[in-house]
Amino acid sequence: MINKLVTRIKDLNAPVVVGLDPKLSFIPDHIKADAFAKHGENLKGASEAVFEFNRQIIDKIYDIVPAVKPQIAMYEQFGVEGMIAFKKTVDYAKDMGLIVIGDIKRGDIGSTSEAYADGHIGSVLVGKSVCHGFDEDFVTVNPYLGSDGIEPFIQVAKVEKKGLFILVKTSNPSSGELQDKVSDGFPIYEHVAMMVDAWASEHMGKEYSNIGAVCGATYPEIGMRLRMLMPKSYILVPGYGAQGASARDLLGFFNDDGYGAIVNSSRGIIAAYQQENYETFGEADFANASRQAAIDMIQDINWALGH
Amino acid sequence: MINKLVTRIKDLNAPVVVGLDPKLSFIPDHIKADAFAKHGENLKGASEAVFEFNRQIIDKIYDIVPAVKPQIAMYEQFGVEGMIAFKKTVDYAKDMGLIVIGDIKRGDIGSTSEAYADGHIGSVLVGKSVCHGFDEDFVTVNPYLGSDGIEPFIQVAKVEKKGLFILVKTSNPSSGELQDKVSDGFPIYEHVAMMVDAWASEHMGKEYSNIGAVCGATYPEIGMRLRMLMPKSYILVPGYGAQGASARDLLGFFNDDGYGAIVNSSRGIIAAYQQENYETFGEADFANASRQAAIDMIQDINWALGH
Repeated sequence: MINKLVTRIKDLNAPVVVGLDPKLSFIPDHIKADAFAKHGENLKGASEAVFEFNRQIIDKIYDIVPAVKPQIAMYEQFGVEGMIAFKKTVDYAKDMGLIVIGDIKRGDIGSTSEAYADGHIGSVLVGKSVCHGFDEDFVTVNPYLGSDGIEPFIQVAKVEKKGLFILVKTSNPSSGELQDKVSDGFPIYEHVAMMVDAWASEHMGKEYSNIGAVCGATYPEIGMRLRMLMPKSYILVPGYGAQGASARDLLGFFNDDGYGAIVNSSRGIIAAYQQENYETFGEADFANASRQAAIDMIQDINWALGH
Repeated sequence: MINKLVTRIKDLNAPVVVGLDPKLSFIPDHIKADAFAKHGENLKGASEAVFEFNRQIIDKIYDIVPAVKPQIAMYEQFGVEGMIAFKKTVDYAKDMGLIVIGDIKRGDIGSTSEAYADGHIGSVLVGKSVCHGFDEDFVTVNPYLGSDGIEPFIQVAKVEKKGLFILVKTSNPSSGELQDKVSDGFPIYEHVAMMVDAWASEHMGKEYSNIGAVCGATYPEIGMRLRMLMPKSYILVPGYGAQGASARDLLGFFNDDGYGAIVNSSRGIIAAYQQENYETFGEADFANASRQAAIDMIQDINWALGH
């Protein structure tokens, strides 16, 4: 799957992923009104609005970005109905040719991680039928439980030819409370990075590995260091735009070949029409505002990279 | 919610939670055959079998144990249909008077953790309607992202009068790879324990706090140390039985008052009929095998506690 992602990034000249994290407050009133009129002001109404919002954005970005990253929490908040919207979003994005990174940050003890892996990037056997649960292309994984919580994801990814991004250093302000703690001379995030690099070496695609990492754009110096520690891993970089990082902050996350990182923006793209730069599009044309914001983000990053 | 849990534990004299982690291989053939005949060998068939299995077990244990802990991964593996079975299990268990601990191990950056918290122990506003997603009583939370990933859960728990169990030291063999790393003179799990204790002090019920911790029974010496570091937190203890810990290993997780810990068993209870001790019940009477296994576990722990 990493080969497909790298090829798409090269073809589109766009090391960018759009985070589909649809809060209700991002969704234009006319979409909510339609959904609530059909289904009521309830979880089903909310979830239908979420999917319709995503669908219209996907229709305007599928030809310019390689991937989308639905944040499952934003669906899970609407219960079972939200999970239906998540699944419809995954399927629709894949139908439109996008690679789907499920931002699920799961992680548990071995047999339980296996169930998560089966549900999100693998399959389950029901009687004699092989059935697929959510069926994303990549997922994000939390490493707090150690290697026996991660290895089931790696095994499933290997069998299904899919990929992972393992949390190394997250973009939030308090990420350092545990991740930066120094032990045996290295911060915890470097210990995780060394584990990721070992797995990455064993699960190579052509140029990059199917085992990637997550490092927040909000910590550019750490990004440079992690880039060196995990040369074969793609780095999924959240934190650009709304969370405060600029294109220049991203340079250290890329390898000298100009690849090796994919930068996420969520709010900055999907809620672009609510921002000063794009407000002339208006609420009715929100999806074209998102398209323009994606184009601008790609240009901004390519400018910084000298592409 | 912790007051309700402690009261139930005292009334039943049973510091025990039954883990509802239904692998298909645990479910008797007649239940699977019925579900597959109705719905097919597909995700819906699997999920109906899972719920029916849970329902029959709940009917046989609701009067002897205070709580159940569905492990969401075991439902999530069946995609949307599995999430329906999860929700039906949560609702049915609550209807039968059980307290429900959602073993979800979620954790993310602030706004995303808020969405998880809203979905699992809180509510969302859809138009003018307050809607509840999964609506468990407690959830487990992963601390790798630091305090700003946990505080939204605490805020929601406070408003909704619910509770948390934060992962401190997990029961799996490789839990030490990150959790045992020593920094500033203390292992990471103690740093987390100190954070948990600070939150616990701020969110007290009567005798115990609504902010609890998870510590694996498989590390009894660590359990004793964590018991001292977090005197006000209930400790959710996985790892008894199938994972290898005995009742004697559990003593250090309890306070001198004989309370302060709740011990989980999953496979050991729900798949009891597959074990030598309970095989005389037979597959048809699997639920009574589970009841007997729960009775035996409660006796075993109370014997060790001298209750």
